[in-house]
Amino acid sequence: MQETSSAKPWAGRFNAPTDAFVEAFTASVDFDQRLYRYDIQGSIAHATMLARQGILTAAERDAIVKGLEAVRSRIDAGDFAWSIPLEDVHMNVESALTADIGDAGKKLHTGRSRNDQVATDVRLWLRDEIDTIRGEIQRLQRALLDLAEREAETILPGFTHLQVAQPITFGHHMLAWLEMLERDRARLADCRRRMNVMPLGAAALAGTTYPIDRHYTAELLGFDRPAENSLDAVSDRDFAIEFTADAAILMMHLSRFSEELILWSSAQFGFIELSDSFCTGSSIMPQKKNPDVPELVRGKSGRIFGHLMGLLTLMKSQPLAYNKDNQEDKEPLFDTVDNLKGSLKVYADMMGKVTCNRERMREAAKQGFSTATDLADYLVRKGIPFRDAHEIVGKAVGLGVREGRDLAELSLAELQQFSGAIGEDVFEVLTLDGSVAARDHIGGTAPAQVRAAIQRARERLGAEASGDA
Amino acid sequence: MQETSSAKPWAGRFNAPTDAFVEAFTASVDFDQRLYRYDIQGSIAHATMLARQGILTAAERDAIVKGLEAVRSRIDAGDFAWSIPLEDVHMNVESALTADIGDAGKKLHTGRSRNDQVATDVRLWLRDEIDTIRGEIQRLQRALLDLAEREAETILPGFTHLQVAQPITFGHHMLAWLEMLERDRARLADCRRRMNVMPLGAAALAGTTYPIDRHYTAELLGFDRPAENSLDAVSDRDFAIEFTADAAILMMHLSRFSEELILWSSAQFGFIELSDSFCTGSSIMPQKKNPDVPELVRGKSGRIFGHLMGLLTLMKSQPLAYNKDNQEDKEPLFDTVDNLKGSLKVYADMMGKVTCNRERMREAAKQGFSTATDLADYLVRKGIPFRDAHEIVGKAVGLGVREGRDLAELSLAELQQFSGAIGEDVFEVLTLDGSVAARDHIGGTAPAQVRAAIQRARERLGAEASGDA
Amino acid sequence: MQETSSAKPWAGRFNAPTDAFVEAFTASVDFDQRLYRYDIQGSIAHATMLARQGILTAAERDAIVKGLEAVRSRIDAGDFAWSIPLEDVHMNVESALTADIGDAGKKLHTGRSRNDQVATDVRLWLRDEIDTIRGEIQRLQRALLDLAEREAETILPGFTHLQVAQPITFGHHMLAWLEMLERDRARLADCRRRMNVMPLGAAALAGTTYPIDRHYTAELLGFDRPAENSLDAVSDRDFAIEFTADAAILMMHLSRFSEELILWSSAQFGFIELSDSFCTGSSIMPQKKNPDVPELVRGKSGRIFGHLMGLLTLMKSQPLAYNKDNQEDKEPLFDTVDNLKGSLKVYADMMGKVTCNRERMREAAKQGFSTATDLADYLVRKGIPFRDAHEIVGKAVGLGVREGRDLAELSLAELQQFSGAIGEDVFEVLTLDGSVAARDHIGGTAPAQVRAAIQRARERLGAEASGDA
Amino acid sequence: MQETSSAKPWAGRFNAPTDAFVEAFTASVDFDQRLYRYDIQGSIAHATMLARQGILTAAERDAIVKGLEAVRSRIDAGDFAWSIPLEDVHMNVESALTADIGDAGKKLHTGRSRNDQVATDVRLWLRDEIDTIRGEIQRLQRALLDLAEREAETILPGFTHLQVAQPITFGHHMLAWLEMLERDRARLADCRRRMNVMPLGAAALAGTTYPIDRHYTAELLGFDRPAENSLDAVSDRDFAIEFTADAAILMMHLSRFSEELILWSSAQFGFIELSDSFCTGSSIMPQKKNPDVPELVRGKSGRIFGHLMGLLTLMKSQPLAYNKDNQEDKEPLFDTVDNLKGSLKVYADMMGKVTCNRERMREAAKQGFSTATDLADYLVRKGIPFRDAHEIVGKAVGLGVREGRDLAELSLAELQQFSGAIGEDVFEVLTLDGSVAARDHIGGTAPAQVRAAIQRARERLGAEASGDA
Repeated sequence: MQETSSAKPWAGRFNAPTDAFVEAFTASVDFDQRLYRYDIQGSIAHATMLARQGILTAAERDAIVKGLEAVRSRIDAGDFAWSIPLEDVHMNVESALTADIGDAGKKLHTGRSRNDQVATDVRLWLRDEIDTIRGEIQRLQRALLDLAEREAETILPGFTHLQVAQPITFGHHMLAWLEMLERDRARLADCRRRMNVMPLGAAALAGTTYPIDRHYTAELLGFDRPAENSLDAVSDRDFAIEFTADAAILMMHLSRFSEELILWSSAQFGFIELSDSFCTGSSIMPQKKNPDVPELVRGKSGRIFGHLMGLLTLMKSQPLAYNKDNQEDKEPLFDTVDNLKGSLKVYADMMGKVTCNRERMREAAKQGFSTATDLADYLVRKGIPFRDAHEIVGKAVGLGVREGRDLAELSLAELQQFSGAIGEDVFEVLTLDGSVAARDHIGGTAPAQVRAAIQRARERLGAEASGDA
Repeated sequence: MQETSSAKPWAGRFNAPTDAFVEAFTASVDFDQRLYRYDIQGSIAHATMLARQGILTAAERDAIVKGLEAVRSRIDAGDFAWSIPLEDVHMNVESALTADIGDAGKKLHTGRSRNDQVATDVRLWLRDEIDTIRGEIQRLQRALLDLAEREAETILPGFTHLQVAQPITFGHHMLAWLEMLERDRARLADCRRRMNVMPLGAAALAGTTYPIDRHYTAELLGFDRPAENSLDAVSDRDFAIEFTADAAILMMHLSRFSEELILWSSAQFGFIELSDSFCTGSSIMPQKKNPDVPELVRGKSGRIFGHLMGLLTLMKSQPLAYNKDNQEDKEPLFDTVDNLKGSLKVYADMMGKVTCNRERMREAAKQGFSTATDLADYLVRKGIPFRDAHEIVGKAVGLGVREGRDLAELSLAELQQFSGAIGEDVFEVLTLDGSVAARDHIGGTAPAQVRAAIQRARERLGAEASGDA
Repeated sequence: MQETSSAKPWAGRFNAPTDAFVEAFTASVDFDQRLYRYDIQGSIAHATMLARQGILTAAERDAIVKGLEAVRSRIDAGDFAWSIPLEDVHMNVESALTADIGDAGKKLHTGRSRNDQVATDVRLWLRDEIDTIRGEIQRLQRALLDLAEREAETILPGFTHLQVAQPITFGHHMLAWLEMLERDRARLADCRRRMNVMPLGAAALAGTTYPIDRHYTAELLGFDRPAENSLDAVSDRDFAIEFTADAAILMMHLSRFSEELILWSSAQFGFIELSDSFCTGSSIMPQKKNPDVPELVRGKSGRIFGHLMGLLTLMKSQPLAYNKDNQEDKEPLFDTVDNLKGSLKVYADMMGKVTCNRERMREAAKQGFSTATDLADYLVRKGIPFRDAHEIVGKAVGLGVREGRDLAELSLAELQQFSGAIGEDVFEVLTLDGSVAARDHIGGTAPAQVRAAIQRARERLGAEASGDA
Repeated sequence: MQETSSAKPWAGRFNAPTDAFVEAFTASVDFDQRLYRYDIQGSIAHATMLARQGILTAAERDAIVKGLEAVRSRIDAGDFAWSIPLEDVHMNVESALTADIGDAGKKLHTGRSRNDQVATDVRLWLRDEIDTIRGEIQRLQRALLDLAEREAETILPGFTHLQVAQPITFGHHMLAWLEMLERDRARLADCRRRMNVMPLGAAALAGTTYPIDRHYTAELLGFDRPAENSLDAVSDRDFAIEFTADAAILMMHLSRFSEELILWSSAQFGFIELSDSFCTGSSIMPQKKNPDVPELVRGKSGRIFGHLMGLLTLMKSQPLAYNKDNQEDKEPLFDTVDNLKGSLKVYADMMGKVTCNRERMREAAKQGFSTATDLADYLVRKGIPFRDAHEIVGKAVGLGVREGRDLAELSLAELQQFSGAIGEDVFEVLTLDGSVAARDHIGGTAPAQVRAAIQRARERLGAEASGDA
């Protein structure tokens, strides 16, 4: 116990050792160890800069760099004993380094603090994760584009209020999802750009008295620039919140996709079939094939919303600069990244294997008076104001409901009851194919428009893949 | 891989094996294994009931009970290989049982489903955790009572808007915290009572065709009664949300306590000192002694708020009955319990070791015109309407602010400028001790009232400890 | 402007008038005026107590009571000019009183503060609202019971994972909702009981120097007891959070009901029809009949979750006692009450007019192998362990899926392929009516159980209606 | 009643009138009327495009444009009767138009739906509000720059864990806030850019059969481009969520500022004084001067977090395309905008009038061993490894704590007890001015760095003001 306490990097002014439970309760090494590669990367850059500025000798720098690389190799290999009394990843790494290389190790912490160190580590880590996530989004977008292309002419009912509204094409529907993901990808690019600013050099909160060169360290670490203000640099967790907000919106999108996949997989809709590989069964009902993946992803949205709320609440009303509260930023952030990556991965894999039941979809589109708007538009073209046309069609639909027949199944005479403007040519506009083909402008559901939109989307994705984000 | 899939309890109707990543992504055994004792407890009760109803033979029951106890011992001993392909704690346990005892093991799942099984396990587990948590709250309340008793006459400034308002006693302040915890404890008791209803027997969603006796199983497991409706029994997660809401309010309280402990530990306030055992230092600033424990607990409040939000969102708009989304209920619930217990424990330990700087507190109470209300009340007793008295005192304070003197430091002549009703006796009401002693009614800050309140609180706690909650 | 400021109840020590925008930004009278009846009720009780304790004369009390009643009548009649410079409902009422009755009005504020006054007003108001809300819940429960009784034998498919699972009765499904509401009602009763404690007498934060009798005031106002601690009494907003948490759970339930009503109203399900009175149409699609009410209620759940989160965040880490932050407690609370009452009212009205399409439901239950579990149970009764039976049925279902026939449509010979234990009597267990009737234990879906459950629920509701909550 | 219903734009197929309570419960005109200017702007652009495409005649277009302008004037003048039965702002405006100009008015709705109309209105409105909000942020930033400039050399203690850490300059602290606001402003610019895409032309969900020119309408309305997908265009509320997330982060920042202003205004800190114009007093304690504005703003953060949570929950798992749930997007969004603008405005006004108590700040910085890090750095420069230097200083601080003296108050001999490397020159590094001046690198607290940072910030703000965002 006493030994534990004397190992602390700050034990000097303390008279009583840390309470054992408190030591474990306040330690972060259990979860922040995942940052070790970034911690070491940051330390190497820091030591390189210190040597260039004459604060370390070249020999000290070399010993530190070599020592840190050795520590990294040991951790990579799973050959490293993490210590709770050493509190966090930073002290664990530094302590191992000093044990290995002696006094030079003790000099590494010159001109920095754990406050700017952890802020730097997390940014380096999250920057990489955002790149991975944006790649997974692209992979999912490509799967959607392939599916949209395959089903560009497949007709299903479009719904509003979960009531049949108008016929649309399945490809068009997939492109709606693609657009949501496109915004998600753009939001994450903005977040990455905004966070790519280096806290290191802020030290505890005020900067340091050593003649450091923050521009150089920033360059070594791939940051766009050093943070402008030291107090802000160590206190700021905006990047974590902004990322989590972006993740929450993305998960909201996946939750909406999931809702539709689940509906469409039900016996009542029967529009699609998910591959057996993405479903599971029941321990009691032998016939079940459950859309577990979309359900689980839908459920995970709440978890990410919760992390966003937790992070906002965490930061609310903390005075500057660093407070211990901030240690609570990591677990929700890590969990957000893990669940987001997992959800995107299963989605990208799963969407490549969706089977469409084209007949069921077309059959469903034939019901529910889905071409009623087309009839109204027809009447407008015959010179009737839209509001009057709407009312006429409403009455025709009323008859259809009572008789159990769709509009195309009413006779011309029956239709003409409601307006003399209706002629024989009306039946053309009441077909599904005619209806979708007629919505032929940018953003519309016509197969030709879907194909053009796919083409534009492929160009956007391709352009980006070859250049930067 | 094929082998993996054929091991599934539901593989019968499937043609393609589960995707390997999906298998891991959808498995819950990593986290739900913590329920194993409750899973086994539930299975033993279920088997006992099945045998009593003639659905199992006595020999089968005995084999199952003995087998389950053996599995439990192996898990207790850390001698159990959890399997991801077996998905969850239930199938892991049952599969080990069947491997050990053969066909009787395959009969255990008669008349139940994983849906009612997991709902039962979680309730059994949470019931125990609530009992532990309520015990920890009591321990913290006792620590507060001891501190309140010790400091029943210690005067500090009471604040509103973080401005000095009126003098209060430290003991009185501690009792405010005690009252918050008393409501927390009561809320948890209500939650426990409401959740103590047994889902088992609901089977997948509709009940079972076997002649089960749910009242008997409920009795064996200590439930008050079987759930009234099978669909509700497997779909309901109210208990998890209600518990998490109670936890969120409790953590909000601890966050408020933390805010005050942090303020009071600052150099500017200097009202209290936390024991070294509950503080840590800085890696760069050798003089620091940081109130890490209150800060961390304050930070953890956001985490629990987030879990509450996650659980509400999770359940929102799920159709009945069980959906895979529900698997996401466990991790936030487990994390809430762990962090709540940890936070209460460190608080109960820490509050026993708080040192009060009585002189600093009294000094602070002397400033800021804390007895201005007493002067107003004095004037009212002299016959001046309260609103007029308030205005008179406001002017006297204005003079004090300009002169840099407190009310008790103004001369009688100076005071009489503002009202002729002020006499020599005014200085008695302007003392700190007079001020607190005068608030002598139930709920007031007078030391006598504090002592009486402590007495009542001890009786409440004592009565409860000897009986049930 | 100067006039504005001089009207302030606290202007004494201030040199500069309040900024005009600040005055409006910080005033609460726009929204807290809704509390006026409770503010006056509290003031009357306070004056009555003051007179009984000799702090006011009987004449002063009578003037105050009469004056307050006159103010109330004017506000009731819409004949009252609310003033922003007077900040809040309390000062508006008191100022009008003083204008009417002179000096006696200025004495009303003796021994209290706005801090304990507002805490009392809100509790009085919320207590009434909870009673109203619990009444509305009961009304909805009765509508569900009537519907459940009417459709006790109506068979529809029960779903898990939105896949057809087992046949259930519609009445049974309605009772699942009833149970959720029963917990909601109980939670609100607990909340009401816990909040029925009187803050008045806490004054600003420390109690008052007047010889007040808080037990008497509590009795006059119908509170169970005075709050135990003055600091807690003015700082506590637990009751608002607990109520909003209860409301959030209730809205989550209504959101789940809504999800099902929307699904069931879709062309694909077609299980029910909502009355035209609760639906609206489309401005462009004449055929639409949209389930607006359930959709809107589903949408409102997010709003209430948000208010809960807002209130928790509001209170987090506020030091004691009152801070201006607390003013932000009212709008979310008021909005929660309004939306909760509205949602319950439309639901109670709407559920009385739901039409069931019994044929569509039965048809849907016939598909999807909903009696597969019954076949497995049949095999168990023939001596096959459940897990083996499950696998046999899985294979039979596999054949059915491939052939496009349900289990009851397979021939005996086909079924016997999978197990020799299957005999001619198997077809009885594969009927829908046999399946539901067989789940004949408490909580099961058998019509007999549904009727018994309805009976028990009516007794619970009746008992409560005649007694207290 | 019947009349009410027949007035509906969709009454054709309905047999029963809308329930009166339902009509009010589902109407949005009470709150969406605030969009009227944008609704009319969108309609004028739509009519202009329709005429250019030959769908309307020039005369019809002129009648519509003139008619809409007249309606706008009447609403501007408060001379317009909003009707609940007409549901929303769109139908109220269109109905008034048709009443005025006859049949041409009925043609306005050709080729659009309320679904794309409302999505367009809200974007137009929010675009303007974002511009206003970004302007208010700039105004607050300028107030901070002025204050930072005035107090560039004012020394106060910098805190970590609310413990005195190192001396910093007040100007430096203000710049930390400036940086947070800079990110907020950038986030809102990203949001504005991403949302500036036009839904109009998506019609109900699938596009329209008329030969519309969406590029032309987009140009007329200042949108960057038409939305790529009609289903997405009417379903998407990302912009509302992204904006609210940005607002939540901004309010979190203001809540942190508030926390500091409240602390600094307390008697214990006494670092600053807020102008009387931004404070209020107490109804019972005549001496109080409460920092109401920062407290209220701190409180409002929870409200905005709640709205964010509400909006995320609202959208979660809605299937495409429009559902009535979406109506619930407006009130939280409106309330977020109103509270954000109000909070920024009072902050910008208030920060211009803050008075610094320079002496109190300097005095506070002298205590708490704030130059301990400087001593450690001094030792490092004498050749002692940082970790050893840290330990030496810790012991010196320990002596200081026991003796009640700061480091600068210890004698050379006392200091040399702990390390022989300490010389007479140590006392220079222990001064406050020396300490801050030494942190002289970009981001550091040295007055020279603060002045340089102010200069850079003024250039950034100036550059932007003259160009676009």
